[in-house]
Amino acid sequence: MTIPILVTFSGGASGNWRVDDIRPVSGASLSMCARVWVQEDADTGPIDQAMWSLRGTTSNTRYTQRSEVTALNAVQQGLARPQATQAALIPIRKSKEWWALAQDERRAIFQEQSKHISIGMDYLPGVARRLHHCREMHEPFDFVTWFEYSPEDTAAFDEMLGRLRASIEWTYVEHEVDIRLTRIAHAAT
Amino acid sequence: MTIPILVTFSGGASGNWRVDDIRPVSGASLSMCARVWVQEDADTGPIDQAMWSLRGTTSNTRYTQRSEVTALNAVQQGLARPQATQAALIPIRKSKEWWALAQDERRAIFQEQSKHISIGMDYLPGVARRLHHCREMHEPFDFVTWFEYSPEDTAAFDEMLGRLRASIEWTYVEHEVDIRLTRIAHAAT
Repeated sequence: MTIPILVTFSGGASGNWRVDDIRPVSGASLSMCARVWVQEDADTGPIDQAMWSLRGTTSNTRYTQRSEVTALNAVQQGLARPQATQAALIPIRKSKEWWALAQDERRAIFQEQSKHISIGMDYLPGVARRLHHCREMHEPFDFVTWFEYSPEDTAAFDEMLGRLRASIEWTYVEHEVDIRLTRIAHAAT
Repeated sequence: MTIPILVTFSGGASGNWRVDDIRPVSGASLSMCARVWVQEDADTGPIDQAMWSLRGTTSNTRYTQRSEVTALNAVQQGLARPQATQAALIPIRKSKEWWALAQDERRAIFQEQSKHISIGMDYLPGVARRLHHCREMHEPFDFVTWFEYSPEDTAAFDEMLGRLRASIEWTYVEHEVDIRLTRIAHAAT
């Protein structure tokens, strides 16, 4: 686990990811735009022409236990694989009731009841992910997760989301937007 | 658990808390100054004349289980009690090794081995505290804890710190500063 990375996702006219679709899952949607720009550790803030901007930081594990970390590390792959041309950017906000739970109560719902870690494992190494926390940053969401996968893994990715959204954990999700993207040539802007 | 509060502690010439002492416990100290200004949810940033500034946000529990939350809530008291004229501001940074541990490994060191929660319980309700997280904010520390207690509880407070600093958890602390303060009249600046 390295130093936390601050990541800014800016929806607008520029960026290396073309927006294919923006769908509200729970609550209000975000405005449709042409591209998403992903900036790491940019202290300058969102780009000028952004229609919306989501920020978050990587962090340490919050629920994952050693045996699970070991199992995940044995199979998961990183971002930026050449064949992973598809991405999903999914911001989520959970309810006050979720955040009022104690650590052991959240862990029990997250894994023992909802199998969040186990479900994610079922789609490795195809679906790579990076979680960003933003609840403490006065952002409108608590988390922003970035997923990358190949076109052939799109159906599997949708199946994974369906299983997670049917879980008890998701009854605590009160705002969720699902943004799908395709990588374009790095030289394009 | 309410919405996270962003708190800024600014050391300089102004503020309602007089600085009695600043001692390095591990690593470098912070500059001596006359006062500390405590700002909640101030988007304007640190005050101009500050010699140093520490920021952090309150958050949800990270290790505390339901039975422990219930026990703590039964006895702990809030900040700003009239008799609690003494304060300590203690910023801490833990090592890379700590943050690379999985959730269950950190919990085991924190409570089962080091009795962090139990030790804190022994000094309630005399010593009130509020924890602020800043590891994800690119601050020089990971946490800033603010304690308030009465003059008669000063020896007990020092005993509590001694027990915590002798614990296994503290072998992961690589930077710690201990700032002691006394509240002055609210009208003073």
